[in-house]
Amino acid sequence: MTQNNKPRLEVCPSPGLLHVYDIRESIVVIIDVLRATSTICTALYNGASKVIPVASVADCIRIGNDLGAITAGERDGHIAEGLQYGNSPFEYPRDFVQGKTIVLTTTNGTRLLDMASLAAGIITGSFPNLSAVCDYLSEQAQPVLLGCAAWKDRVNLEDMLFAGAVVNRIKANFDVNCDSALIAEKLYLEAKNDLFAAMKSATHFQRLVRHGVEKDIRYCLTPDVAPSLPLLQQGALVNANKAPQR
Amino acid sequence: MTQNNKPRLEVCPSPGLLHVYDIRESIVVIIDVLRATSTICTALYNGASKVIPVASVADCIRIGNDLGAITAGERDGHIAEGLQYGNSPFEYPRDFVQGKTIVLTTTNGTRLLDMASLAAGIITGSFPNLSAVCDYLSEQAQPVLLGCAAWKDRVNLEDMLFAGAVVNRIKANFDVNCDSALIAEKLYLEAKNDLFAAMKSATHFQRLVRHGVEKDIRYCLTPDVAPSLPLLQQGALVNANKAPQR
Repeated sequence: MTQNNKPRLEVCPSPGLLHVYDIRESIVVIIDVLRATSTICTALYNGASKVIPVASVADCIRIGNDLGAITAGERDGHIAEGLQYGNSPFEYPRDFVQGKTIVLTTTNGTRLLDMASLAAGIITGSFPNLSAVCDYLSEQAQPVLLGCAAWKDRVNLEDMLFAGAVVNRIKANFDVNCDSALIAEKLYLEAKNDLFAAMKSATHFQRLVRHGVEKDIRYCLTPDVAPSLPLLQQGALVNANKAPQR
Repeated sequence: MTQNNKPRLEVCPSPGLLHVYDIRESIVVIIDVLRATSTICTALYNGASKVIPVASVADCIRIGNDLGAITAGERDGHIAEGLQYGNSPFEYPRDFVQGKTIVLTTTNGTRLLDMASLAAGIITGSFPNLSAVCDYLSEQAQPVLLGCAAWKDRVNLEDMLFAGAVVNRIKANFDVNCDSALIAEKLYLEAKNDLFAAMKSATHFQRLVRHGVEKDIRYCLTPDVAPSLPLLQQGALVNANKAPQR
């Protein structure tokens, strides 16, 4: 708590800067907008029982085999060798994932998740579950660190835009004394009327469009189309959103 | 060089992310707007023969004694114990510094300078020498990394604003494939008509205003009032700007 009796709200723009923040009493929100955390909230919203994030393709295959689970993950924009599915939210509709476990390997998101293991709580966030994340953070009234997964430690625009959207929504309930949060909110406010247009100059946009996933990008920038709340419990992300599902 | 035959232009928002960038063929611009690099270019513009940046107060005292030089530096907003002067550009007018050597210790800028020692070249930048920096970078036609000194590894608004000003001025001559550069430029374009107003919500602004240096902040945000080009040569920053001095 700070002097004004509101909990801290901070933004970490890259896993390479996580050491700057004291997260022991914080809820850390892992943000990997294109596309890991968008896909995670979608799969859980569509009824997957859990998503197990792992760092390596080898772990993904091994754990997937042990559990009889769906194995998923990409490297350099393609389904990784030995895995069944990729990182697209459209691969995980209800009639496929309901009741199932998914083991997912991602480069940036999983690493940040490991690094944040000392946090008081870990959830994942992205535009498809924006309101669910904001509601949860406001209810908990604990310090919050919005952790951008970035791209191999390079700050990226899309994760900062989502962090800015959260700051903009919930800042009245928090003490914001963090230029990264200020910067994220400025970026979001400038972009919010057309997030897709704002993303066109971003490096990851160019990278993904070359792989033909413009539809994914549009989905990943759409608020509240998959209002689940992925909460890390014993190494797996489960949907903690008590709101009734469709 | 990249495919389009223009050299890279990138922005590193914090020393904690310097490892991401390959700087061996790059000119690194050290940016510590409030106030180290603003003060350095001012002292050199006012005729100081060189500024020697050092990490610790002890080194500052020792080297200052050895050379009979001016010792300068602050810790937590006050002149550090044992040193003669602080970090304010107004402490270094021409009638005081002409022909003299200054040994300067700063927390963030000096650390980044040490970290960037493998670069092909190192200069310092801030609004008071904005055009001198941009002209030099465009003439050299080498890869450029704009390195924000930040605040104890936390990204700050003022260094990003300066990086954005440089990106905006010189991007036509470079290949910009870096979201941090994109973000910096967006922040600058939104703020450029009143940089002082844009800075009012920044953490460092609040910190400095408590120390009564609003006049310093206004100066440090004013373009081209001290058009020197501080270039690191054998451990000291010297004015490499060949333009005639006043």
